[in-house]
Amino acid sequence: MLNKVVIFGVGLIGGSFARALRQAGAVRHIVGVDRSEAFLARALELGIIDSAAQTGTPVSDPQGQTLASGRRVSVSDPAGQTGTAARPVCRFEDAIKGADLILLAAPVAQTGRILTAILPHLDASTIVTDAGSTKSDVAAAARAVMGERVSQFVPGHPIAGRETNGPDAAIADLYQGKKTVLTPLAENGPTAVERVAAAWKACGAIIHTLTPEDHDKVFAAVSHLPHLLAYALVDDIERKPHSDLLFQYAASGFRDFTRIAGSSPEMWRDISLANQAALLTELDAYLAQLTRLRASLAAGDAAALEATYANAQRARRQWIETIEAAEPPQPKDAAAE
Amino acid sequence: MLNKVVIFGVGLIGGSFARALRQAGAVRHIVGVDRSEAFLARALELGIIDSAAQTGTPVSDPQGQTLASGRRVSVSDPAGQTGTAARPVCRFEDAIKGADLILLAAPVAQTGRILTAILPHLDASTIVTDAGSTKSDVAAAARAVMGERVSQFVPGHPIAGRETNGPDAAIADLYQGKKTVLTPLAENGPTAVERVAAAWKACGAIIHTLTPEDHDKVFAAVSHLPHLLAYALVDDIERKPHSDLLFQYAASGFRDFTRIAGSSPEMWRDISLANQAALLTELDAYLAQLTRLRASLAAGDAAALEATYANAQRARRQWIETIEAAEPPQPKDAAAE
Repeated sequence: MLNKVVIFGVGLIGGSFARALRQAGAVRHIVGVDRSEAFLARALELGIIDSAAQTGTPVSDPQGQTLASGRRVSVSDPAGQTGTAARPVCRFEDAIKGADLILLAAPVAQTGRILTAILPHLDASTIVTDAGSTKSDVAAAARAVMGERVSQFVPGHPIAGRETNGPDAAIADLYQGKKTVLTPLAENGPTAVERVAAAWKACGAIIHTLTPEDHDKVFAAVSHLPHLLAYALVDDIERKPHSDLLFQYAASGFRDFTRIAGSSPEMWRDISLANQAALLTELDAYLAQLTRLRASLAAGDAAALEATYANAQRARRQWIETIEAAEPPQPKDAAAE
Repeated sequence: MLNKVVIFGVGLIGGSFARALRQAGAVRHIVGVDRSEAFLARALELGIIDSAAQTGTPVSDPQGQTLASGRRVSVSDPAGQTGTAARPVCRFEDAIKGADLILLAAPVAQTGRILTAILPHLDASTIVTDAGSTKSDVAAAARAVMGERVSQFVPGHPIAGRETNGPDAAIADLYQGKKTVLTPLAENGPTAVERVAAAWKACGAIIHTLTPEDHDKVFAAVSHLPHLLAYALVDDIERKPHSDLLFQYAASGFRDFTRIAGSSPEMWRDISLANQAALLTELDAYLAQLTRLRASLAAGDAAALEATYANAQRARRQWIETIEAAEPPQPKDAAAE
């Protein structure tokens, strides 16, 4: 049982972590920290968090009333009825103090800044983890900010998501049966890694372990490159003079191929740049592959085209069989990973 | 009301056309013609077709009994009960004679061969159409084989599909609310085009008209290129030494991006080659787009990356809103178009 968990970013990822821990009875008190006043007020209202910490600007309650630090406020209870359940709004340093676990579920580019703000208030017994989609840059930022105390930081990446965002999108079973990849640092002791793993297991996740470097190479290939390719195709079509005609005839194959191009441009800009080296390697391999296929197409080489298509179909079929055997079916809107 | 419709290829596309026409009460008698004995027997058994024509090899009934030409056979009725409903197996020339409408729903590469076989038996009043994914090559094949009688051939392309195939995949509402693109030839009279349009409308389809050339340019961009890109990505990953590790972490984004790589390699080899010129043009534009994006990524140009990603997200969102306003939601497995 974790006594106190602090979550930076009370949107889909952080909010679902909170809901899952609470549903598992694995936590006593959850503090939410967010840049967005509206998100904090909503997360309090939905019962996702027990208290909210300010990050500079004042926090408003759902009725728009400004909350002073430490003031107790009335908000709607989780069932949607307006009640008088008291929800504290605490100071940032009080939020951090005495935490068993801190999860950073804010955009990856903010990692260094958040760790800098946390560090002066961080107890020696607190473990910090994150939920970012890239890990080498997060590990580097943590080392740069925390120095020797980086032993308290265990990088992680839950492989789950939905296309919706914000506290309202948070659900308790988002991580159920999904992988969470931990990329422990050489500095981490076993107790630190175990505390993070136990929290994710309580959320229903299956723990995998990779080095930060291997993690980034793997996700460059199976996630970051497909996102770039999907964005590139939609942008390419949109810029053609007859794009209206083209979109008119785009059908379900196009819709699924480009679904990940519906993801947040800011988030994927940051991921692309954070994983620049590995993504460039994968993109270059793919460009070489396309150049080969172009030559086969131009030469009318039916056998070469069919060999590529057939190998892809076979490999994908085998992959689908493997994941279907290992995991429950994923919800239709499962998306960002 | 069509008195007699002949369908070459009694799988998903041809079988669904038959089921839809029958459900609409728009046809009296449907003849199926197929290379596959098993498909013909199954289509008879399911009540998709009323009679089957041989294309050289003998046709077997579902119990594996060989049927002689013209013999009447007992098969299960459409409700699945084994009955004694008589289903004729007719000669190829008898199948063609007196048809109001002939639909070619066989692979596009077979168009010329099928038309050559049909032509000697084709009544002057019969209209022929097809369901191929490419249209310039089909129009050229029809002109080459039929000469002046190409006025009887109206090329078409229903924009609908599923990932499953064969007579068992055929459903009456496959075309409901979907587009069927007709690409009439200069030689076609209005009666010929109207008969084909009326049949597709009876199936619930919305008729669109393009030239064969415009059709092929449009579908090169929104369908054929995405198929090639999806096949290329899965094949690229499968050939890497650590492909097992990569597939292990591929998640729902990858699954949807590559769903069309589950399509038939033979069919997409033929489509790629049939639409070679337009597909090369689209592929070259996409390669140029990827090369630009690669330069932005290598330069760490956050603004350029975000501009592309954001434009794609906005364009896709607008497209989704447009299709959702215009069409009913598509079934999850809607696929090949």
